[in-house]
Formats: sequence, structure tokens, C-alpha cells
Amino acid sequence: MATMKPKRTRVIALLTDFGDEDYFVASVKGVILSVNPRACLVDISHRIPAFDIDAAGFVLAAACPYFPPETIFLAVVDPGVGSKRKILLVETSCHFFIAPDNGLLTLALEREKPRRIREISNPRFFLDPPSQTFEARDKMAPVAAWLSLGRSVKVFGPALEGYEKRPCPEPEVKDGEVRGRVLYADKYGNLITNIPVSLLQPLSKASSPRQIRGGWKLLAGKKEIRGYRETYSAAEKGEVFFLCGSLGLVEIAVREGSAREKTGLAPGAPIRIVRRV
Amino acid sequence: MATMKPKRTRVIALLTDFGDEDYFVASVKGVILSVNPRACLVDISHRIPAFDIDAAGFVLAAACPYFPPETIFLAVVDPGVGSKRKILLVETSCHFFIAPDNGLLTLALEREKPRRIREISNPRFFLDPPSQTFEARDKMAPVAAWLSLGRSVKVFGPALEGYEKRPCPEPEVKDGEVRGRVLYADKYGNLITNIPVSLLQPLSKASSPRQIRGGWKLLAGKKEIRGYRETYSAAEKGEVFFLCGSLGLVEIAVREGSAREKTGLAPGAPIRIVRRV
Amino acid sequence: MATMKPKRTRVIALLTDFGDEDYFVASVKGVILSVNPRACLVDISHRIPAFDIDAAGFVLAAACPYFPPETIFLAVVDPGVGSKRKILLVETSCHFFIAPDNGLLTLALEREKPRRIREISNPRFFLDPPSQTFEARDKMAPVAAWLSLGRSVKVFGPALEGYEKRPCPEPEVKDGEVRGRVLYADKYGNLITNIPVSLLQPLSKASSPRQIRGGWKLLAGKKEIRGYRETYSAAEKGEVFFLCGSLGLVEIAVREGSAREKTGLAPGAPIRIVRRV
Repeated sequence: MATMKPKRTRVIALLTDFGDEDYFVASVKGVILSVNPRACLVDISHRIPAFDIDAAGFVLAAACPYFPPETIFLAVVDPGVGSKRKILLVETSCHFFIAPDNGLLTLALEREKPRRIREISNPRFFLDPPSQTFEARDKMAPVAAWLSLGRSVKVFGPALEGYEKRPCPEPEVKDGEVRGRVLYADKYGNLITNIPVSLLQPLSKASSPRQIRGGWKLLAGKKEIRGYRETYSAAEKGEVFFLCGSLGLVEIAVREGSAREKTGLAPGAPIRIVRRV
Repeated sequence: MATMKPKRTRVIALLTDFGDEDYFVASVKGVILSVNPRACLVDISHRIPAFDIDAAGFVLAAACPYFPPETIFLAVVDPGVGSKRKILLVETSCHFFIAPDNGLLTLALEREKPRRIREISNPRFFLDPPSQTFEARDKMAPVAAWLSLGRSVKVFGPALEGYEKRPCPEPEVKDGEVRGRVLYADKYGNLITNIPVSLLQPLSKASSPRQIRGGWKLLAGKKEIRGYRETYSAAEKGEVFFLCGSLGLVEIAVREGSAREKTGLAPGAPIRIVRRV
Repeated sequence: MATMKPKRTRVIALLTDFGDEDYFVASVKGVILSVNPRACLVDISHRIPAFDIDAAGFVLAAACPYFPPETIFLAVVDPGVGSKRKILLVETSCHFFIAPDNGLLTLALEREKPRRIREISNPRFFLDPPSQTFEARDKMAPVAAWLSLGRSVKVFGPALEGYEKRPCPEPEVKDGEVRGRVLYADKYGNLITNIPVSLLQPLSKASSPRQIRGGWKLLAGKKEIRGYRETYSAAEKGEVFFLCGSLGLVEIAVREGSAREKTGLAPGAPIRIVRRV
């Protein structure tokens, strides 16, 4: 199989729930390096909770905007491995995504609109024979490697019209309040919501997101969180507050502590942000 | 010391029980990069349970077939560090292995027969002076790095006749049944056995491993596992079943659950696969 | 912005408390690779306990001597992110360090004296706009990447006179005994002290550190640890002993066990080493 070697090989960034303790991730990397020995491999995370498609989708969407153009994201949380679910190859205006067609790409493809969607199905690029239980190693890894060498997305399989999406409710502005939900709890216990801080701006008199302070409170069930801070270090230790997180989203936090533990809130929990009276 | 720089540097793949939280792995990598700044380093895992030589041996054997030719595997689980146990350098038909001579390489060298075995003992390649407690950093890492630059295995020490092996009983076919044992529990709780699915084939009427279904049950102590599935997703949630895993070995699994927890079986447990009546 | 491309790119070594499960580390790497696609990235650890500046400082100081000249260490444990604490760029005789000015670099800069200290403050190198909560991604990562391409430290901000230091008491030799403290517990539970084994030498009749055996005992509170061993494997299983660890420091250990658990000692605990009578 002839290869077109670009001067600079594309980055391949890996995201899975495979863990760090077994042979899974290494096998994927070995297959990639066997095809493209100069591949630049970056681990996003392999410690997504097992089978947690939503967590994987969030982490992918949070990380991918910071990667170089043409980065290939290989993202695998795949309870349906070996079933009839398809394997996707998506090209956007700036990146490539390879993932099972189970909704994992929902959030990432909200931000970067797909230009071409392909089903990965051309056995010419697969390990022979591919196993039924480890398609990341046997199908997705070699495709990622060939893609990193500059192959066109066309060769890997037929075009698809669409892809599986996870329910992903947008935040709403209604009656002068903003309604959303908790999207993700990070390892510090910070609770990241789906509410862009920019949504609070038109409702306030502030001229920039940084100036939105006081004036608002966050309600989650019966809990009321009053303090808006610009940074973690501006809060008192132990105080529950909210701030503009590094993704531009409202985040509930505790300074040097866990908002998840302190509030009992978890991904999915509905929240409202309303004016303080 | 003159170096022969090959156009393409060899991959160095690392497997240890050093964990991800300390300075151990980084020191090893720093030493390698100090000798060969263009080294291609891949982590297999550093989260092998402390001192678990069998787990390390399994993970190594499972991962190594997927790596490029001439990959150098540096595998260290080494309760005997600083003792008189030797340090091995093994060249097979396709790879190199550096490891303490404590049986870690047993399974890997079942698959890839050794062509040359050397003791790593030439102090010319060691950090000066090497510590008694961290030979991976002070002896094995620099040797791996020089090897990645194309040095011959001969320069690192004298030839050895053999190497330490762990007891590693083969599966048996007897009285129409297959007897083996659990080799490894992965992070999902799947129990990987030492029984190649191909062993079931001659006993059944199936023409390919994929066609072996029904007809067999798996016995482990008093437990009986009846269902054979082709994929995880073909099982019911919560069902204990067995399948052909990604290594071609019989694997006991629970869909989106832990077979280890559900069955109580652990590595070493004997199992039998017999015809259902 | 014009770049000077050196033939060999500098290594960038990352140390954080960001964990392996989120998007944090990947975002930092993505930013670096966007500036320098040929960056050689090495993870020291991302599993420093959250906000534990001392642990990070120890791991950094333990690893950095083994890295190639001109390695750039990006070390972030940063409870004060977004506050007025500065971001440091330090050039020593052999390496570069980028870190919040909170004492993290204390131990590393005991070993490698700073030649130039700069505040990272030139927004020309930052993501636009930088967030208040993730300066590792938005300020430190791009600076590390530009530095890896050969930029001078001068361009990133003004010179500083000094930097924040953590209290870091030196071991004392007094009345024929050595007084120090536990610095760090590694993942095996080994307790690493701040006492260089070389300090025991002038007090003993031994001609090299390896010959210091017997003759000494280690006292920690009411605990007395009598055995000095040269290697882990020279001890009995379960025995608490002390030895010369791989950093040249006295280390309390249990063979294939945890000295931390077995002694109850933790970082900070005072210890004394005295002659056995």
C-alpha cells in the first residue's frame, strides 16, 4: 500500500475508558506505530469511568479546541463493541474524529461542525482477522495511523448522512433566569455546568463576563449558592461558590475542596441562575 | 562512545509497577532521553500491582505482538532489585526485552523464541555509580537507550544459556474436555484464561472459532457458566458468559459488569470447558 | 512571530496535580503542540495529591537531575491560580523551570542554582484571552512551547530578584547523631528522609556509604529501627529497616511492604540516627 508521507505527521490523541493498568492502550499504540513509526501520540485520558459515554464526550469536547489543526482524535468508550453500531470517521473544518457511533461525539461536533462523515468499514486497513471484542486495536488504530500519514478519509468507507446523538439539552434563558444542568464533575470535585458565562452577561449590566459579580445566585434543588468569584483563590476555604471556569462555563466550586461532595450534586442535576433580590 | 545513528530510532516500551505518582518512571525516561534525545517512548503500564510478576508477564505478552519490529521492551517488576539476580537482555526474531531475570519474560518468550540472551553487566553503560535500589534507572534505562541507537546486544554483557521461568501450566485436552486456569483479571473484571479458543474447535463441529456457540459450558469450582457469546454486547446485562477475547483466549465476562466480582474467581483458579448435555 | 528552530527541540517535562482523568493535561499538551508540533513531551506525574506543593517539589527535585540539558520543567500545583502570585521562569546552569511562585521550586533550586529568574507576564505569548482559572494552559504552556523552540527567557517578562521558598530545614549533625525528617512517602510506602547517607559516613569508620552497616539505629518518636541494609532484598519480608535509597538519602523501608503503614510515620516526622551501643 503506497503511503504519502507528509512532512509533518498529524497528532493522534487518544481518549478511552481502557484504564492504565492493562495491555489495551499499549496495543492500540503499538498498532499505530507499526503503521506510522513517526506518529505523535498524545493521551487525553484512559481513565474515563467504564462505559461512561457522556463523561468521555465532555472531556473530548473540552480538550479538542486546544489541539493543532488536523489532529486525529481516537475516542473509544464502547459498550456496543462488536455489535452492529458503526465506527465513525468525521472530518470537521479543523480536526478528525474516530469513534464508535454511540453519541460520544455529540458535544465535540456541536462545536466543530462535521464536513465529511464516513463509516470505517474497509477491511483493507484492518488487522487480519479483526477480533469481535477489541475494534479500537484492530480497526480504529490502523485507520488512525493511515490517516496520520495523509490518507484521505474517502478510502476508509462509505459516506454517512448522520451520526448518533446523545440528548444534550441547551441552557435556556427564561423569565430573567438561566436554566441549565451540571455536565461534569472534574477530579477536584468542581461541577461544570452547560451554562456559558456569556449568557449571564446580557441579563446583567456588566460589560464583560469578568464584571458579573454579586447580583446573581445559583439554585440547585433546595440549595442556594450566593457567591460569584473570579478565581478559586478569591474564595474563602470551604466556601461553596460559582465562577467562570476555564471552558467559559459556569462552574460550582469549593476552594481546595470538592463541590461535588459538599453539595451532593452530580452530572445531570438541574440548576438555575437568578438575580439576587 | 561512538554511536551509530539509524535513520529511524527504535521504539522503547516501558512496563513497570512503579506507579504514576512518583519520580521513578520520569527518571527512567530522563536517562533514556539523555542518551538518545530522539527516543520514541511508549508506556505500556506503570500500574502493575506492586511486585506482581505474573500480572506484568501477562500484560507484556498481550501487548508485545502489536509493536513494531525491533521495539525494545523495558519491563521491571523487581522485588529482587540489588540482589544477585541477573538483568536480562533478550533478542527474539522481532523484538528486544530488558528485564530482571525473575520469570517476568516467561509468557512473552513462549510466543517469541529467544535468539540471543545476554546478561546486562557492562558498567561502561551504567550511571556512575549505579544505586543498589534503582537498577531500572541506573542500568536498564541507559542500556535501552544505547540499544535504541543501534548498538549490538553483544556489547552489554556475556551470553547466557537460559533464563528464569515461572510455572506456566499449559491447558490440557482430556476426556473430551479442556482444562485450564484463569490467567489475568483486567480492569473491567473480565477473566482471561489460558485456553485458546482454537482448542475448542477440533472438539466441536464448528468450522471457525466464531461458530462455536452453545454446545459448551464452562465449569469453575461449583460454578457453571453456560452462555457462549460472540461479543460483550450480545449478552444480557448482568449475565455471566464466556467468549473469545481479543487475545484469542477464552474469557469470562459480564456485560458492563465485573466477572471477577460476580464469580469470585481470581487469577490461578482452575476451570474446565465441557460439552453441554 | 518568527521562530528560531533549533535542530533538536528541547524536552518539556510536565508535573501537576491535574490527575489523569480530565481534560486538563491534554489541553496543556494541545497548546504546546500547536506552537511546537515537534515538542518532546514527557509526563513526570499528574497524580501529585491535590494542592500538595511539598510533594510536587520533592518529585520534581528527585527527577530533574536525570533529564537532558535544557529540559523545560512545567510544574503546576497551584492553589493560588488567578491570584496575584507570580508565574516564574527560572534558568539554571542546566535546565528551565516554569511554575507558580508558591515554593514548588524550593528543593529543585537547592540543587541547581538559578542563573536567571523571570516573571512570565508578556501577554503576547498567552492564549487570548487567558482564563483566570487555568493559567497552566493559557500562559505557562505556550511559554514552555516557545522556549522549547529556542526563545530567550528575556522575552517572557521582567527579571525578578528572588522567589518564594518553602521552609526546608537542613539535616543537622550534633552530639554524634544526625537529625532530620521524613520528606516523602512513595507509592510503595517507602519513607524518604532529608538525610544524605554521606552524612553518616564521617561519623562512622566506613570508607564508603555502602560499608555503613550495623553500628547505627534510626529513632522516630518512640520507634527504634535497628537494621541497616544495602538493598530491599537483603531484608527479611516484613522487617522495618533503613537503607541508602536511590537518591542518596536515608530511606525507611519494609521489604515488599509499606513502611508508611507499618511505622505510622508521614512526611514531616522528625527522625534521628544514632550509634547503637
